[in-house]
Amino acid sequence: MKKTALIMAGGRGERFWPKSRKSLPKQFLSLTDDGKTMIQLTVERILPLIDIDDIFIVTNTDYKELVKEQLPELPVQNILCEPAGRSTAPCIGLGAVYIRQKYGDAVMTVLPSDHLIKFTDMFRATLKDAFELAESGANLVTIGITPDYPETGYGYIKFNPASLQGRAYQVDRFVEKPTLKVAEEYLATEEYLWNSGMFTWKASVILDNLQKYLPEMYNSLLKIEKSVGTVDEERILEKAYKEMQSISIDYGIMEKAENIYILPGTFGWDDVGSWLAVGRIKRKNEAGNVVDGNIITIDTQDCIIQGEKKLIAVVGMKDTVIVDTHDATLICTKKNVGNVKKVLENLKICNRGEYL
Amino acid sequence: MKKTALIMAGGRGERFWPKSRKSLPKQFLSLTDDGKTMIQLTVERILPLIDIDDIFIVTNTDYKELVKEQLPELPVQNILCEPAGRSTAPCIGLGAVYIRQKYGDAVMTVLPSDHLIKFTDMFRATLKDAFELAESGANLVTIGITPDYPETGYGYIKFNPASLQGRAYQVDRFVEKPTLKVAEEYLATEEYLWNSGMFTWKASVILDNLQKYLPEMYNSLLKIEKSVGTVDEERILEKAYKEMQSISIDYGIMEKAENIYILPGTFGWDDVGSWLAVGRIKRKNEAGNVVDGNIITIDTQDCIIQGEKKLIAVVGMKDTVIVDTHDATLICTKKNVGNVKKVLENLKICNRGEYL
Repeated sequence: MKKTALIMAGGRGERFWPKSRKSLPKQFLSLTDDGKTMIQLTVERILPLIDIDDIFIVTNTDYKELVKEQLPELPVQNILCEPAGRSTAPCIGLGAVYIRQKYGDAVMTVLPSDHLIKFTDMFRATLKDAFELAESGANLVTIGITPDYPETGYGYIKFNPASLQGRAYQVDRFVEKPTLKVAEEYLATEEYLWNSGMFTWKASVILDNLQKYLPEMYNSLLKIEKSVGTVDEERILEKAYKEMQSISIDYGIMEKAENIYILPGTFGWDDVGSWLAVGRIKRKNEAGNVVDGNIITIDTQDCIIQGEKKLIAVVGMKDTVIVDTHDATLICTKKNVGNVKKVLENLKICNRGEYL
Repeated sequence: MKKTALIMAGGRGERFWPKSRKSLPKQFLSLTDDGKTMIQLTVERILPLIDIDDIFIVTNTDYKELVKEQLPELPVQNILCEPAGRSTAPCIGLGAVYIRQKYGDAVMTVLPSDHLIKFTDMFRATLKDAFELAESGANLVTIGITPDYPETGYGYIKFNPASLQGRAYQVDRFVEKPTLKVAEEYLATEEYLWNSGMFTWKASVILDNLQKYLPEMYNSLLKIEKSVGTVDEERILEKAYKEMQSISIDYGIMEKAENIYILPGTFGWDDVGSWLAVGRIKRKNEAGNVVDGNIITIDTQDCIIQGEKKLIAVVGMKDTVIVDTHDATLICTKKNVGNVKKVLENLKICNRGEYL
C-alpha cells in the first residue's frame, strides 16, 4: 500500500521568541548546528521511506511561501493550507481526505514539523514498523517515547505490558500532562510512554474513527473531499473548515478509540519545547556555553547565547539565555524560560504586534 | 584675584562601554535623568562662581568638536588640546601656563569633568572656601570627601585633626588605594578623606611646585608658555608636550609637597566609576530596576537596563547590568562590572577597534 506522510506545520510557536515570530515560527527556524530548519530535517528524516511526492504539509496561507522556499522539491499541490487554526483533529482529517481523494487509500504517518530526532536510523526502523502494523490491519498506531525523567509538560500513554506483539504494545489509555508526583509514579511503573504526537494509520481508518467519534467534523470533511478539483474547492474548504470544532486528535479520537497500538521509541527524541532545548542540541564550548554569533564571554558559564551580527559581551553570567535579533533581545534565566510567554502577553496587551 | 577653572576632559574612560567609546567617552555622555552630559553638569555647577570666559577645558583634538557642541557658550580659545595623553600633572601644568599667560596670575580650581555632585549649593560653598584659602596665601588646597564606607578604589588623604583653621585641615599625606583592611582602619580613625581629584591653587603656586618637584616638566611648560600667540605655538606645544613625563599630579606633586590644606566635602559626590553608579544616580522603579529605553521586564529585580530603540525583554533576572547600543550589547552581573575592561582587552587583542 502507498506510504504517505502528513507533516503538521501550522503552529505559531511562541516559545522561541524573539527568533520565532508569527511570521517565522519554530518549524521554519534552524536551531541545530547543521543550519537546516526543523521542517527540512523532518522531511529529510523520512525521505528514504516515503517519496517526496507523497509527503503532504498542512500549514496555513501565511506560511505557504516559507514551505515552498524551504522545501523546493516538494510538489506545490502537496501544501495544504488550513483556512483557520482548528487544532490537530481537523488538520489530520483534512490531510486524510486529500490522501484518500488522491490514492483511494494509503497508509499515512502524521508527524510534527518541529521536533528533533538524534538517531535517525532507529527512528526510521520504528516508523517502518508503524507502517507495517497500520497496513496489516491494526487500527491506530502511535509512537511513544521511553521517558528519561518525570516530565510534567508531556502527555503520557499507558500500555499493557502483557500485550507485546512484535515490537508493539496495546494501549490502555492516553493521559493528559500529569503533576510531578503522578509523573514519578508513571515512571516507576515502566508502563507509560511519552505521547510524541506521531501517529500512523490508513487514511480510511482515521476517517472511520472521525466518523465514529467526531461525526459533525467528518461531515464537514466529506464536503471538502467532494469539492477537491472543482471550481468551488477554495470556497467550500474555507466554509467547511471554519465550521469544524477546534479539538486535538488526542482528546477527540485517541482518548476514546479502541484497538490502538504503541511502538516504544528510543531514538533521541526532543520536542524542542523551549530555548533550553538549544542547550541540549547544540555543541557546548568548554565553559558549557552554547554560543552563536558575534559573542565575547568573560567568566560566563552554562549560558545559551544566540546572536547575529551585533556584538554581545557577556560578563560573569551563569545559566542565562540570551537571544538577540535585529529588533528585539531576550535576556532570561534558564529557570524562567517558561515565562517568555509573559513577554508576548505584555506585547499583545500593549498592541505592539510588530514584535510578535 | 581672578577666579578660573580648569576642567580635565581628556579621559578615554572605558568603564561605561558599550555606551562610552574612544570617540565618546564618559564625560560627554548623559548618565543622569536630566539628559545633560557630565561635562555640561560640571560647567553648570561652577557658573555662579566663575565666568564662562574663565573656564578652560583641557582635552585632546579628538574631542574638541564634542566640547564645542556640548558647551556652545564657552570661548573656543578656552579649549586646550593636549597633543598626547600624559596623565594629570602635564595637563594641569598646561592649564596653569595658559592661565598665567592670560591673566598674569589667577586662582584656578582643577576639576574632573566626569564626576557627579548631588548637593550643588554645598559644593559651591566648599569651592568658595577653597578659592579664599588659595588666594589668602595657602599653598595647595584640595577637597576631600568624607568617606561613607571602606572603598578600595580611591586614594585617601590623611589630615591632621588638630590643625583645623576655619573649615580646612592641614594634610599629613596622600596615600594610594588601600586594601580593604587598611581602608577599614582609615575609616575607623576618622582622619582620612577620599581623594576627589579636585584642587584649588594660584596658577603661580602650582607652577612653583612643578618647578620644584618636576623641573624638567616645568622647563617644557615654559617653552609652551613663551610660544603662546606666536606662529610656532602649535609646533612647540606638540614637541614640548610629548617630551613631558606621564605622571599624575598626586604622585608628582601632592605626595611630596608641603603646606597642603584640605576642605572636607559632604556634598553627595560620586565619581561615577562604573555602571553601578547609574543605579545610584537614576530613579529606580518599584522593582528596584533602573530602566531606560524600550524595555519589558518580567520578574526582574535590581537591574540596570539601558537600552535604545531595540526592544529588550528581561525575564527572571536580578542584579544584572544590561546596556544596549546600536552595535554592541553588554550583559554583566553587578558583581562583575569591573571585568568589563576584559571585554575591551579582548577586543584590542582581536583588532576589533570598531567596538572600542
